[in-house]
Amino acid sequence: MTMKVGILGSGVVGQALGRGFASRGNEVMIGSRTPESDKLKTWMEKTGKMASTGTFAQAAAYGSTLVLATLGSAAEEAIDLAGLPNFRGKLVIDATNPLDFSKGMPPGLFVGTTDSLGERIQRRLPEAKVVKCFNIVGNSQMVDPTYEGVEMMICGNDKTAKEEVTRILKEFGWKGVIDVGGIEGARWLEALVPLWVRVGIALNNWNNVFRVLHE
Amino acid sequence: MTMKVGILGSGVVGQALGRGFASRGNEVMIGSRTPESDKLKTWMEKTGKMASTGTFAQAAAYGSTLVLATLGSAAEEAIDLAGLPNFRGKLVIDATNPLDFSKGMPPGLFVGTTDSLGERIQRRLPEAKVVKCFNIVGNSQMVDPTYEGVEMMICGNDKTAKEEVTRILKEFGWKGVIDVGGIEGARWLEALVPLWVRVGIALNNWNNVFRVLHE
Repeated sequence: MTMKVGILGSGVVGQALGRGFASRGNEVMIGSRTPESDKLKTWMEKTGKMASTGTFAQAAAYGSTLVLATLGSAAEEAIDLAGLPNFRGKLVIDATNPLDFSKGMPPGLFVGTTDSLGERIQRRLPEAKVVKCFNIVGNSQMVDPTYEGVEMMICGNDKTAKEEVTRILKEFGWKGVIDVGGIEGARWLEALVPLWVRVGIALNNWNNVFRVLHE
Repeated sequence: MTMKVGILGSGVVGQALGRGFASRGNEVMIGSRTPESDKLKTWMEKTGKMASTGTFAQAAAYGSTLVLATLGSAAEEAIDLAGLPNFRGKLVIDATNPLDFSKGMPPGLFVGTTDSLGERIQRRLPEAKVVKCFNIVGNSQMVDPTYEGVEMMICGNDKTAKEEVTRILKEFGWKGVIDVGGIEGARWLEALVPLWVRVGIALNNWNNVFRVLHE
């Protein structure tokens, strides 16, 4: 089954998804504030005859399926520019993220949390070396985990303490760690848990583990 | 290298980690409000001679390494009961989560987000079928992903729309989806992204994918 796909947003995400839809035989229009840009001309040449560009409103009207692929901070304005009636009853694939780069890298979220229990605990214990660990897996997986070769995501402010936790994890049967930085990373390790619960509900199983696939 | 480990919290997490530390030759004391409970006696019998129990303060004083394994809502009080000086200079492994069950299952976080861009977008487009998708992977992985057999985590309010997204994803080379529920799941899919960024920084690579390992 092929279809017409309207993509709002002409950055790397919109381009990648546009190529993907076109490569599967769908007609694709990328919507942009600047549909005549060199960037989009190049994208059209690479993508072939299934590809076109237009304004946000044109792309939203064109697609029977719509994809939101703008910057998160621009998403709501892009929707307004595209025109609310153009979305009525349609599948809208939302690939956006409310990333907040106002404090530099790595980003937070402009809709979302600005603190964590890990940080609260580190503030409560300023002289201790708090390392967030084990919070993202179920108790059945903490020691002698079912799956081999998995790295635990951890964070904390003290390098030596994280090395010690790494040693402990290896002893427990984990491959090692992915160190996601200072204790403020607990915001995201903690936020992984409501997701883990939802995955458990979806799979009706609680031995699930998030693994980072990487080179 | 073996050590003395103090664990605050006697639930399944504290017990699992206590068994783990003991099984690797460490001496472990679980700290609890009720160190003489039948539950903890059973745990000690199973765990062997390396295991003991005490109050929060005793366990915190005992361990050269400490583990926080209480309910998130009890963590700060447990720390106060354990006595702040007992943490000074020590490694404190924080396995807690600020889970908020006040609205039932699945939980949110009592420190954390209560909205998402996905929900905002669905509210802005009440007649559209918004499905959060693609937001948790880099653009290089959206179509023809590097790793085989991976499921995309998605969410949305409309079952048929999610079935359509599933079809699209399979066409794009994904194994399928894990449907984490209604559009409010976007809170956690979005919160995965700051973590993904931190993982990218840690690995100095941006083709990383979160895979759910499950039976």
